[in-house]
Amino acid sequence: MLPQLTFMHKLIITVLVLFSVHLVFSQSYTVNSPAGTISVSISNTSTLTYQVNYKGKSVIKSSQLAFKLTKPEATLANFEITKVDSLVHDDTWTPVWGEMNKIRNHYKELSLTLADKSQSGITLKVGFRVFDDGIGFRYEFPSQTNKYIIVGDELTQFSLADDHKTFWIPGDYDTNEYLYNTTRLSEIDAVTAANKEPDIAVKSVIGPDAVQTPLLMKTADGLYINIHEAALINYPAMHLNLDKPTLTFQSHLVPDAIGNKAYLENPSRTPWRTIIISDNATEVLASKIILNLNEPTSYTTTDWIKPQKFVGMWWEMHVGKATWELSSGKHGANTANIKHYIDFASQHKFDGVLVEGWNVGWEDWFGNWKEDVFDFVTAYPDYDLKELTAYSKQKGVQLIMHHETSGSAFNYERWMDKAFQLMNTYNMSTVKTGYVGKIIPRGEHHDSQWMINHYQRVAEKAAAYKIMVASHESVRPTGLHRTFPNWMASEAARGSEFNNAPALGITPEHTTILPFTRLMGGPMDFTPGLFCFKLNQFEPTRTTEVRTTLAKQLALYVTIYSPLQMVADLPENYEKHTDALQFIIDVPVDWADTRILEAEPGDYLTIARKAKNKNDWYLGAITDENSRVLNLSFDFLDAGKKYEAIIYRDGEQAHWKTKPEAYVIEKKSVNKKTKLKINLAAGGGCAISIREVK
Amino acid sequence: MLPQLTFMHKLIITVLVLFSVHLVFSQSYTVNSPAGTISVSISNTSTLTYQVNYKGKSVIKSSQLAFKLTKPEATLANFEITKVDSLVHDDTWTPVWGEMNKIRNHYKELSLTLADKSQSGITLKVGFRVFDDGIGFRYEFPSQTNKYIIVGDELTQFSLADDHKTFWIPGDYDTNEYLYNTTRLSEIDAVTAANKEPDIAVKSVIGPDAVQTPLLMKTADGLYINIHEAALINYPAMHLNLDKPTLTFQSHLVPDAIGNKAYLENPSRTPWRTIIISDNATEVLASKIILNLNEPTSYTTTDWIKPQKFVGMWWEMHVGKATWELSSGKHGANTANIKHYIDFASQHKFDGVLVEGWNVGWEDWFGNWKEDVFDFVTAYPDYDLKELTAYSKQKGVQLIMHHETSGSAFNYERWMDKAFQLMNTYNMSTVKTGYVGKIIPRGEHHDSQWMINHYQRVAEKAAAYKIMVASHESVRPTGLHRTFPNWMASEAARGSEFNNAPALGITPEHTTILPFTRLMGGPMDFTPGLFCFKLNQFEPTRTTEVRTTLAKQLALYVTIYSPLQMVADLPENYEKHTDALQFIIDVPVDWADTRILEAEPGDYLTIARKAKNKNDWYLGAITDENSRVLNLSFDFLDAGKKYEAIIYRDGEQAHWKTKPEAYVIEKKSVNKKTKLKINLAAGGGCAISIREVK
Repeated sequence: MLPQLTFMHKLIITVLVLFSVHLVFSQSYTVNSPAGTISVSISNTSTLTYQVNYKGKSVIKSSQLAFKLTKPEATLANFEITKVDSLVHDDTWTPVWGEMNKIRNHYKELSLTLADKSQSGITLKVGFRVFDDGIGFRYEFPSQTNKYIIVGDELTQFSLADDHKTFWIPGDYDTNEYLYNTTRLSEIDAVTAANKEPDIAVKSVIGPDAVQTPLLMKTADGLYINIHEAALINYPAMHLNLDKPTLTFQSHLVPDAIGNKAYLENPSRTPWRTIIISDNATEVLASKIILNLNEPTSYTTTDWIKPQKFVGMWWEMHVGKATWELSSGKHGANTANIKHYIDFASQHKFDGVLVEGWNVGWEDWFGNWKEDVFDFVTAYPDYDLKELTAYSKQKGVQLIMHHETSGSAFNYERWMDKAFQLMNTYNMSTVKTGYVGKIIPRGEHHDSQWMINHYQRVAEKAAAYKIMVASHESVRPTGLHRTFPNWMASEAARGSEFNNAPALGITPEHTTILPFTRLMGGPMDFTPGLFCFKLNQFEPTRTTEVRTTLAKQLALYVTIYSPLQMVADLPENYEKHTDALQFIIDVPVDWADTRILEAEPGDYLTIARKAKNKNDWYLGAITDENSRVLNLSFDFLDAGKKYEAIIYRDGEQAHWKTKPEAYVIEKKSVNKKTKLKINLAAGGGCAISIREVK
Repeated sequence: MLPQLTFMHKLIITVLVLFSVHLVFSQSYTVNSPAGTISVSISNTSTLTYQVNYKGKSVIKSSQLAFKLTKPEATLANFEITKVDSLVHDDTWTPVWGEMNKIRNHYKELSLTLADKSQSGITLKVGFRVFDDGIGFRYEFPSQTNKYIIVGDELTQFSLADDHKTFWIPGDYDTNEYLYNTTRLSEIDAVTAANKEPDIAVKSVIGPDAVQTPLLMKTADGLYINIHEAALINYPAMHLNLDKPTLTFQSHLVPDAIGNKAYLENPSRTPWRTIIISDNATEVLASKIILNLNEPTSYTTTDWIKPQKFVGMWWEMHVGKATWELSSGKHGANTANIKHYIDFASQHKFDGVLVEGWNVGWEDWFGNWKEDVFDFVTAYPDYDLKELTAYSKQKGVQLIMHHETSGSAFNYERWMDKAFQLMNTYNMSTVKTGYVGKIIPRGEHHDSQWMINHYQRVAEKAAAYKIMVASHESVRPTGLHRTFPNWMASEAARGSEFNNAPALGITPEHTTILPFTRLMGGPMDFTPGLFCFKLNQFEPTRTTEVRTTLAKQLALYVTIYSPLQMVADLPENYEKHTDALQFIIDVPVDWADTRILEAEPGDYLTIARKAKNKNDWYLGAITDENSRVLNLSFDFLDAGKKYEAIIYRDGEQAHWKTKPEAYVIEKKSVNKKTKLKINLAAGGGCAISIREVK
């Protein structure tokens, strides 16, 4: 039976090819977006190229689309077009959770089937989807004689029209926790930038001209361009290498242990390469292209997936009050201490308590490229999992599991089933995973194809146990939370923990850049909510400090979207400001609607979000190191409705450096017509809860 | 508590070091074997060296002992001796199964503790064990400040006294299935030899001067020297690289994906480097040094480990009667066919039936470096595991499982538990594992440290399920069957399947070399017992042929020791020679005693073995391509006892090429005084069962 099938299959392919060679296809195509703002032109003269215009302006100049294969050995650059398909798509879908409850997916698509002319016998497809706020394109290798392909390199180019202002971090195979640099394209120097980051333990810098995506650029005439990828599945992450003379980026895929980029079994396809374009910064943040280019979830049930806020003794370890390891004598994850956190969470209606350092192995876990470090099931003797499970249940709180792999992904896969079974047994439905250290299998990288598949295996295995995942030190997201909605958040960038990093720390502008870069791919477990700003509480010699005001810490719960939000500081620090804590208690983590009111990368950001199933709104406004006046119009509110606003703003002398704790809380009646002026301090912000008054 | 321990620990080390620097140790030591036949001299002048003499003759000239570390970066060649220990050991132990039921372990040991002078701070120990038939030495890294060490290279040398005749195969990271070459040391050309082997699918040849161990040499004055290793645990396999001008071998460890050799956590130790020496070839084969240098098993029960003989439809696939894959239309592992084998096994009292190609995946399993090929639990639709389990139980036979990993060891570890649980469920207690193809994790090799640990994980995991293992395409053994007695046999050399390899096949001499090389490390699943010699039974165009006589096939059951012996040919081929089959039915696979009666590598071999708990003996004699007269003395029998011998010998015109099936079976009364002359044909042999008559 099967051999006949195979035969038929071959037959069909042959017929198509025979058929197609009799057709003559045009060698150039243009696709306009539904409203015509964006147009993509594809040309297949000597080589295959594409270019992108926005309202008539050139955004991407003629750029090549090509491949280098290791098996079969071939360079795919010269093609014959054998088939052309096009369609228009327009529908609206509802995410399991997110920033809004309806997302429209509207684009025109052109798909070219290409026969390689180099005698490799390879058939390739390139598909373009053109939206009004950007484009996505990807490659597909249909079923063909060469069932297995090894990708030596993807040679996709992005040729920029000018020497744009660029927000970038160094291209690196193993970390994305760099501070953002803002320079012209021609001024990118990734190696120098990376050398300024002693606080990043494991680095694999690609070279001086390599940067990571999501990459944001701003043109001289005020156009915003964001390059990233969507649906990174069974393929390495894409970094970008700049050819400075031509201002052309070329894709740089993360290699495996022996230098290959990807092992494909056809039919196969690459992730989407995305370019989001707008002359309005708020529209870049509002773009849903990346989510739209991901596949809908195939999960049959999703009611077990619950957005949540959680506390944890994690910050105790960072500021030196406690340690992960037992041997120090100040072990944080001890039964009494965790009960204290459970009480705190229960009192303020937070859903979960994250416990790090609960399991044996922390005495000797880091920096030795050791394969078997943790077993993910053996608790330290001072941590009574059974008792704490009972206690947390009685308090209406859930313990959140922590699986630090120390980079030994392989060992984690050996233990995963047992580890998730343990979570089911002890009624834990959320796990924070970690990948601190060099990857094992040795020679693989955090962003290489094998690890990309590993993260997916973890997400799918977790789903089988109805477990939600927040991954740290993992690849930056590409919208896969649409397909795997239990993989709720990742760190995958410089998070709040770097407030305690001596060298560069977190600059006031950092959180105004993150939404335009890292967050374009998906939610970030940033862990905001620090209420104590000098970090020498427990170690007087410590010089690190949080470079925001308290009001800005509140605003981050709105400006940084995540369905998992940590309430990161210590209970004793919150007890001093319970009035301000109220905003964190009130603010939702799942939204019916989101409005980006104003935004400028590196400077400021104001977002209003509407709670699900209510008429309540929450607003967050942040600024960089410069104070500014927030001119706020409430016209996003429903007409004819009355609201009470609780405004958490910076106090008069507030300044991130000198007076971060200075804040004012005031109540105001507001409606659709209300306009307010609010001062944001240097490194400051403002958070507002707006509730309908019936 | 733990920190104090650590502190005490450091204290002890410090004290030792302080103490030792006040002692002055001699810089040269000599250790003689218990009977004085072998002496080892160690010298620590400019560098650390050793040399070995046998009965006053130089066997190993002054040779260096050194290391190159990647972490910490250091070359360990200049040492200060800080401690010297010596002891004499003499005991006798009983293996779970094997060639004899008592093994004496008698040696003198010298152990030097060395402080590296290169400021690395590394402490190293070298221990020598000197037996009357050879030596073993190994390195140890005791507990020290540098807890984690990465070995860049082990620089152990074996400097030979002359240009010896050598039996070698090419040094290769991924295969040991080469035919043996016999040349002088100076004539070794491994690359040319490897290029003559098109039938080996995956090769990673090291270079022209690299060979594998066990390596046998014969000196001009008739000394036999065998170099190998014992107790290969958590370390890569050692190959040897020859410096031809000085006739000096240096250890060449198999690298991992990024070129490192071994990752050690101290305290740690290397395998033993072994040199077996005798002026009598039979004593080389009788040596138990390698077993003695392995650790006793820590298994608490071993009664579930049972030596056995088994049949299987494996050979059907090789000769083209059937296939592993279902899609061919002649799938071998179908319920009806396996019942036929169960009947055959049951009729002749064979213990097991090996079934290959029973599970889904064979349509697309090889050559694509594919990670997920088999799941080890899903049977083909035409294979009814449940029904066959019931049928085999009723017939008093056990099914033997087959786990082909296609080199994707990682995927096998993901499935191992489920796979072994399935075996328990279906009453299967033995598995044949296979590693055909390039290894995944990619960049690792069949013989690199990671895979060495993998094979051990498989053995230990199997033991947890009371499962016995025979591994194919795995590393060549190093006596670990003492420590892991359920890892009963390996292929790890050119086995009987190569009779069907068109290029070089198996030469008549091959089985006279194997015992001196590959078999020194442990049992081999060679799969003897072929009764049909032209292999074109099912495919007339096939030109391959078995280059032995039928009598020699019988003799191999005695000359090639394994506690798992396959009865490899098809039932229909055995039915034609049921009288000869009787020897295979009778011959045991576990022995009370073994006598090597005569042996010359490359020429001939005669072995007599005594059955366990009986006075019966079984004798096997084989020759190479030359016929010879076997002058047999039965003086190994007990005095005063009467025996009946059934002699299975080559017929008058027997010749491997022209008349392999010609054999004679005759009965004779024999006793301790009996002497017989028996003709062995070209490529022939003789098998004798000798039973006590009461």
